[in-house]
Amino acid sequence: MANLGFVGLGAMGGRVTKRLLDAGHTVTGYNRTKSKAQGCLDAGMRWGESPRAVAETADVVFTMVTNTAALHEVFHGPDGILAGLGEGKIYIDMSTVSPAASRHLAAQVAEKGARMLDSPVSGTVITLEQGNLSLMVGGDEATFERVKPILLDIGPKVNYVGENGQAVLMKIAINLNLQVQFVGFCEGLFLAVKGGVPVETALEVMLNSVIASPSLKYRTPFILDMPEEVWFNVNMMQKDMLLAEELGRELNVPLPTVAISNQILTAARAMGLAKQDFAIVYKVLAHMSGIDM
Amino acid sequence: MANLGFVGLGAMGGRVTKRLLDAGHTVTGYNRTKSKAQGCLDAGMRWGESPRAVAETADVVFTMVTNTAALHEVFHGPDGILAGLGEGKIYIDMSTVSPAASRHLAAQVAEKGARMLDSPVSGTVITLEQGNLSLMVGGDEATFERVKPILLDIGPKVNYVGENGQAVLMKIAINLNLQVQFVGFCEGLFLAVKGGVPVETALEVMLNSVIASPSLKYRTPFILDMPEEVWFNVNMMQKDMLLAEELGRELNVPLPTVAISNQILTAARAMGLAKQDFAIVYKVLAHMSGIDM
Amino acid sequence: MANLGFVGLGAMGGRVTKRLLDAGHTVTGYNRTKSKAQGCLDAGMRWGESPRAVAETADVVFTMVTNTAALHEVFHGPDGILAGLGEGKIYIDMSTVSPAASRHLAAQVAEKGARMLDSPVSGTVITLEQGNLSLMVGGDEATFERVKPILLDIGPKVNYVGENGQAVLMKIAINLNLQVQFVGFCEGLFLAVKGGVPVETALEVMLNSVIASPSLKYRTPFILDMPEEVWFNVNMMQKDMLLAEELGRELNVPLPTVAISNQILTAARAMGLAKQDFAIVYKVLAHMSGIDM
Amino acid sequence: MANLGFVGLGAMGGRVTKRLLDAGHTVTGYNRTKSKAQGCLDAGMRWGESPRAVAETADVVFTMVTNTAALHEVFHGPDGILAGLGEGKIYIDMSTVSPAASRHLAAQVAEKGARMLDSPVSGTVITLEQGNLSLMVGGDEATFERVKPILLDIGPKVNYVGENGQAVLMKIAINLNLQVQFVGFCEGLFLAVKGGVPVETALEVMLNSVIASPSLKYRTPFILDMPEEVWFNVNMMQKDMLLAEELGRELNVPLPTVAISNQILTAARAMGLAKQDFAIVYKVLAHMSGIDM
Repeated sequence: MANLGFVGLGAMGGRVTKRLLDAGHTVTGYNRTKSKAQGCLDAGMRWGESPRAVAETADVVFTMVTNTAALHEVFHGPDGILAGLGEGKIYIDMSTVSPAASRHLAAQVAEKGARMLDSPVSGTVITLEQGNLSLMVGGDEATFERVKPILLDIGPKVNYVGENGQAVLMKIAINLNLQVQFVGFCEGLFLAVKGGVPVETALEVMLNSVIASPSLKYRTPFILDMPEEVWFNVNMMQKDMLLAEELGRELNVPLPTVAISNQILTAARAMGLAKQDFAIVYKVLAHMSGIDM
Repeated sequence: MANLGFVGLGAMGGRVTKRLLDAGHTVTGYNRTKSKAQGCLDAGMRWGESPRAVAETADVVFTMVTNTAALHEVFHGPDGILAGLGEGKIYIDMSTVSPAASRHLAAQVAEKGARMLDSPVSGTVITLEQGNLSLMVGGDEATFERVKPILLDIGPKVNYVGENGQAVLMKIAINLNLQVQFVGFCEGLFLAVKGGVPVETALEVMLNSVIASPSLKYRTPFILDMPEEVWFNVNMMQKDMLLAEELGRELNVPLPTVAISNQILTAARAMGLAKQDFAIVYKVLAHMSGIDM
Repeated sequence: MANLGFVGLGAMGGRVTKRLLDAGHTVTGYNRTKSKAQGCLDAGMRWGESPRAVAETADVVFTMVTNTAALHEVFHGPDGILAGLGEGKIYIDMSTVSPAASRHLAAQVAEKGARMLDSPVSGTVITLEQGNLSLMVGGDEATFERVKPILLDIGPKVNYVGENGQAVLMKIAINLNLQVQFVGFCEGLFLAVKGGVPVETALEVMLNSVIASPSLKYRTPFILDMPEEVWFNVNMMQKDMLLAEELGRELNVPLPTVAISNQILTAARAMGLAKQDFAIVYKVLAHMSGIDM
Repeated sequence: MANLGFVGLGAMGGRVTKRLLDAGHTVTGYNRTKSKAQGCLDAGMRWGESPRAVAETADVVFTMVTNTAALHEVFHGPDGILAGLGEGKIYIDMSTVSPAASRHLAAQVAEKGARMLDSPVSGTVITLEQGNLSLMVGGDEATFERVKPILLDIGPKVNYVGENGQAVLMKIAINLNLQVQFVGFCEGLFLAVKGGVPVETALEVMLNSVIASPSLKYRTPFILDMPEEVWFNVNMMQKDMLLAEELGRELNVPLPTVAISNQILTAARAMGLAKQDFAIVYKVLAHMSGIDM
């Protein structure tokens, strides 16, 4: 069993930490708001006083935070992870940041004699709890092989993708489809609804069909029953769409359905829905169709 | 076991007929080009000399043809199905036509004392052969209950949707997502590819993720290996997108991702790819990205 | 001076007729609703009892009606224009119909020994009254040369485009830009407005700039002050967008900005604005931006 | 006559400087590459050794550079304009940068006791040479009134828009329409071309119509005859589209036609056309239509 560190104990990070503890690993954790770490502490996690302290204690240290700014906060500075890394340590970032930002961190980690992997996940809190999360990994392949058994304790599908930054690239390539698929689904759904099919029937039939991806199965029922706890809101989805659009320009890949469906997120923000699960974009399309729901 | 008729023995229709024969039903069939019916005849199907003859012989008669024009050809006229329908017969159309056209036929069938159901399917030849096809059914509910056992011999998921025309409406609502999902997938795929991930790896990772709908799992591998036999080509996909757009205007439902991804089909036609599986639209997006594949 | 006929005395047709009368021509006219012809009758127009009667009386007969259905109504049948055409007569249609429909009529006219030209106009009632209307002409060039002096009495810019149907093709190619330009203008306008610029100022600055086409100068002030009389409503604009989209599919020309901006017209219809000047689409974009105007 | 300074003597800046000299003003100028300033020096401009030197010498100092990065370079640092500004001076930036960046500079200028205006222009080199340039001005209104006579020496239309940053906001709101209008125009043009109208005829007819904005009149002839000297290339146009999209997200204004037509610029870059006049996007649309031009 390994001596691990985990920085960022939010909805996903906290649950990943518990899986690692359940698998028998030692985990030292840190979260900006300590109170949110109580579940992990109760499950046996040790507390680290700072990201740096966690990195100094652990052989393999993970981060899983909301965005690039949050990552810089825990990575840099006198109390940051980088300051605690040294020869032979492995640092794994599970956040969704830009590939360029990830490569930049990896270079700084390498200067310390340590190794970095980017390892974002595809899936939700539910997928994770069901033990079905899939992980993508970017970085040095030998380093990947060393930590692979630990990653398999998080989820059963672990795909080595290529060099540093390429796993977050894959993550972005996947996530843009969450929004495109959701918008396309709503277009079909509202055609059916305005054509007289009850929304529950239309939803069920569509989720029984060949277009029903796991992400649609998970999220389209929110149209009928929006959950109280929000794990991935309009702003977060738009952050990922922007990363996609930036990459599109950087790599010269036109993204027509991304471009259009991102505008629907902007319209949702204009309706004051920025902090709701991004499934709330159904309201934009419903309104444009004259449907009151 | 029932006394059935089947008009339109193409890639899908022929296979449905075989499933019905395998289930023990008597089937009298007709196809414009008789030679294509040989497989069914070998499997025990009886030959009907015309759609009318099939309808006169059978208690329940099915049609499954390419488009509205083809449907009119087998339905109307002195040798058409309508001429052979009478009191107590049931007519089931499995084609994808407009809901309005379907309702119009249903009214004509009712005048003869017979009943019509629209029952398009969601799924491919493969889904059908694996016994996983899902059927949607529109029309009178009592009529549906009478034929439900027969429909379950075709596929295990049979959803009653509502009145006449609403099953084809659902079919169109679903099918537009085939194209939107495929285009979105290619956008992500080519981001990954131009960012340095090998196309095989990117495809595998994406198909391991939460966006992998059955239709994407079936069709995106065509990007690497286009099958010789084509079951659903660019023109057919565009026909369904047009039906969606027509409904969008009729019912006042804006369809932004449909509108944009339909243009990609037009571009594929301009590249001379109209008769290839619609997965070939990847070439449009690849070309726009400066990728030679 | 020529002996002319004019069928369709609406907002545009009536004004064209008056210009022809002012220029000294004899005009026999017909309109489905005779009361709407009073202005023309007061200006010296003779009344024809039917489209056929007009065509029998005149050497050159014009039509200017709303859509393909209206054109068929005045063109075909025992009282239609075609029945009144004969050797040496010239028939000029100024309506916006599909090129294929126009070519079809031209062939029927030719069988009678007469000639048809399609001659739609670019411009509004205002442009016409200011004497600035531009006409496009499709058909036989010799026929065009014969009527050119008459067409110049309607507007100062008369462009011969090519064979039958190509002038209406040009008209559609132009008209799609009315909607695309209007939507793009609103996007810029609402950026400015939400950034704090008063809408009147933003509008004025934009209309002082290089993007101010005559059509934008005419119609964008409607955003502040919608006129009571409507000459070109949402349904009419969408009819032209559909003609464009049909041609796009027929000729394999992808139309991305047409496709997207047509959806905005659909959203306007869903908001109950179908019968208002198409400038009303500003309300769709304003609403999506959370602007109450 | 005023004592002016001008930093950034490119295609536009150099010509503005000459107009100011022609109007009788004293102008001290600076350009990173001095050789490019020769025309201005020949016309009587004095040379400043640095942006700071220009600002120290002049009462009113202008900048007109390519982007935000170039502006920071001449504005900040020991030799920058800011270092040379002091009580009572006026600084006018004619570049297109983000409103936020402009407001930020204005605040720094105010701390020095000077005043800043943002004054981007709408128009091209040609418009400028014809004396038809329009200017938008943002900032303190009293300051605007003081320099208005000087601005009128540059172009005849000077619009006061509002506070700092609002003139660049208007500029962006206008510029996004350059691209949207151009793409819409090409869609219509290629419909006509594939329908059999010669491209020269189609272009002429469209430029004779109500959609012909000054920017379309200037730039669409490039489709037939691309000029050698490039003043506004694909990258520059895309920079302005990105500023628009950023503002759209910041202010919550969905921009559907901007989003889609920006993708066409990306496709142009993928075709290796980044440094050509942005009119070159016609090649993307032509290619998607199967037109070889």
